[in-house]
Amino acid sequence: MANKTLVIGNKNYSSWSLRGWLALRHSGLEFKEIKLQLDTPSFHREIKKYNPAGKVPTLLDGNIRVWDSIAIIDYCAVVAPDKFWWPKDMKSLALARSITAEMHSGFPHVRNHLPMNMRLNWHGTFGDKVQADIDRIDAIWSECRAASHTKGDFLFGGFSAADMMYAPVVSRFLTYNVQLGTTAKAYVDAVRQHPYMKEWYSEAAQEKDIVPMDEIDPGAKQLG
Amino acid sequence: MANKTLVIGNKNYSSWSLRGWLALRHSGLEFKEIKLQLDTPSFHREIKKYNPAGKVPTLLDGNIRVWDSIAIIDYCAVVAPDKFWWPKDMKSLALARSITAEMHSGFPHVRNHLPMNMRLNWHGTFGDKVQADIDRIDAIWSECRAASHTKGDFLFGGFSAADMMYAPVVSRFLTYNVQLGTTAKAYVDAVRQHPYMKEWYSEAAQEKDIVPMDEIDPGAKQLG
Ligand SMILES: N[C@@H](CCC(=O)N[C@@H](CS)C(=O)NCC(=O)O)C(=O)O
Ligand SMILES: N[C@@H](CCC(=O)N[C@@H](CS)C(=O)NCC(=O)O)C(=O)O
Repeated sequence: MANKTLVIGNKNYSSWSLRGWLALRHSGLEFKEIKLQLDTPSFHREIKKYNPAGKVPTLLDGNIRVWDSIAIIDYCAVVAPDKFWWPKDMKSLALARSITAEMHSGFPHVRNHLPMNMRLNWHGTFGDKVQADIDRIDAIWSECRAASHTKGDFLFGGFSAADMMYAPVVSRFLTYNVQLGTTAKAYVDAVRQHPYMKEWYSEAAQEKDIVPMDEIDPGAKQLG
Repeated sequence: MANKTLVIGNKNYSSWSLRGWLALRHSGLEFKEIKLQLDTPSFHREIKKYNPAGKVPTLLDGNIRVWDSIAIIDYCAVVAPDKFWWPKDMKSLALARSITAEMHSGFPHVRNHLPMNMRLNWHGTFGDKVQADIDRIDAIWSECRAASHTKGDFLFGGFSAADMMYAPVVSRFLTYNVQLGTTAKAYVDAVRQHPYMKEWYSEAAQEKDIVPMDEIDPGAKQLG
């Protein structure tokens, strides 16, 4: 019986939840889900029961509580050490840790102006700051793929912590039809076709709720 | 001979640099420093030579490059595994990873309105959002100290990754004379008295440069 419970937000919208959920699925361990509707009064009431930091994702594992996507990933890496999480060779590990941290605290323009919204399909242009974030992410993905000596389509060969952290960006780039270089484009396709990503997408597609905060102006021709 | 080089900003002001520098000192490994003057044209020109992400701290270790404070900490933890970085028991590890990540991506009000500035000594009041961040940090420190079963004055007993991440907050709380609970107050004193923290403070005291972006309005009675 699963004594692990992952508290998440709407699958269509909650980018950080996706990261934590991918870690749990990748760990191979059983877990239950509690889904809270983002940006509602009940969200703010409920989440405080599980986590004083007031954010999803939050993992409850018996009497242990872990919150924040990257902390959940690192926790799962200790709980399920037989799975691939971080590359072993020091140069790749350094790169993986660096780009993961860069994602965790960076790219405010992509995060603010291109909210994750899996059911949307938008065409238009981007402001300079959004475009600079996009270009940097494209460069990161290309650098990782060039540096990766292992087989596989992901940033460091097999699906790893770094891919979990960038998976919501993949979703955004698909939603907003972002133009990318060849390597980055192939990477987007690989992540989209990953079995766990497909599973999350199909569950997101069943949701009907709208979170206004995460919807762009439908008439917008440019974001950012 | 050291082939490790840490690129940092002004010691008086650069909060993220302090975190990376503490990790290097704690590792016990030899390293050189390159100091760049924050918020100057030469900063932006120079940092790009070392790091396409354009931020300090950045660690160069032979042909390996690591950037972002938490990535540098995790890298050092692998390079110097004999030192204490993360608690071993799963409950403490979960807490350490969670609060470290919460610091890395959170507390925007404290970060924006109470810039690290070691030579300043300010008295006044705080806006509600700043105060909410302060209260949350006080609660985190108290929770860690209560949960810590090991001897020592730091969040998880001995000086660890979590303390490195919160060290600049300690400095801010001293600069802005923030009122704290008993446990948090004792913790602030312990960090301030740590040998590496004293070393950084005395080097910061020798700097004369002003970074206007990181100076508060001298007439301000309330921050935030
Ligand atoms: N740094 C956190 C960010 C988590 C986060 O911001 N989650 C959002 C939903 S995607 C949330 O809980 N928002 C609710 C709120 O801030 O009130 C992580 O990596 O998990
Ligand atoms: N998430 C990064 C943040 C690093 C950061 O923002 N550093 C500041 C100085 S404390 C910087 O390099 N600012 C220069 C700039 O943004 O142009 C980390 O943890 O190292």
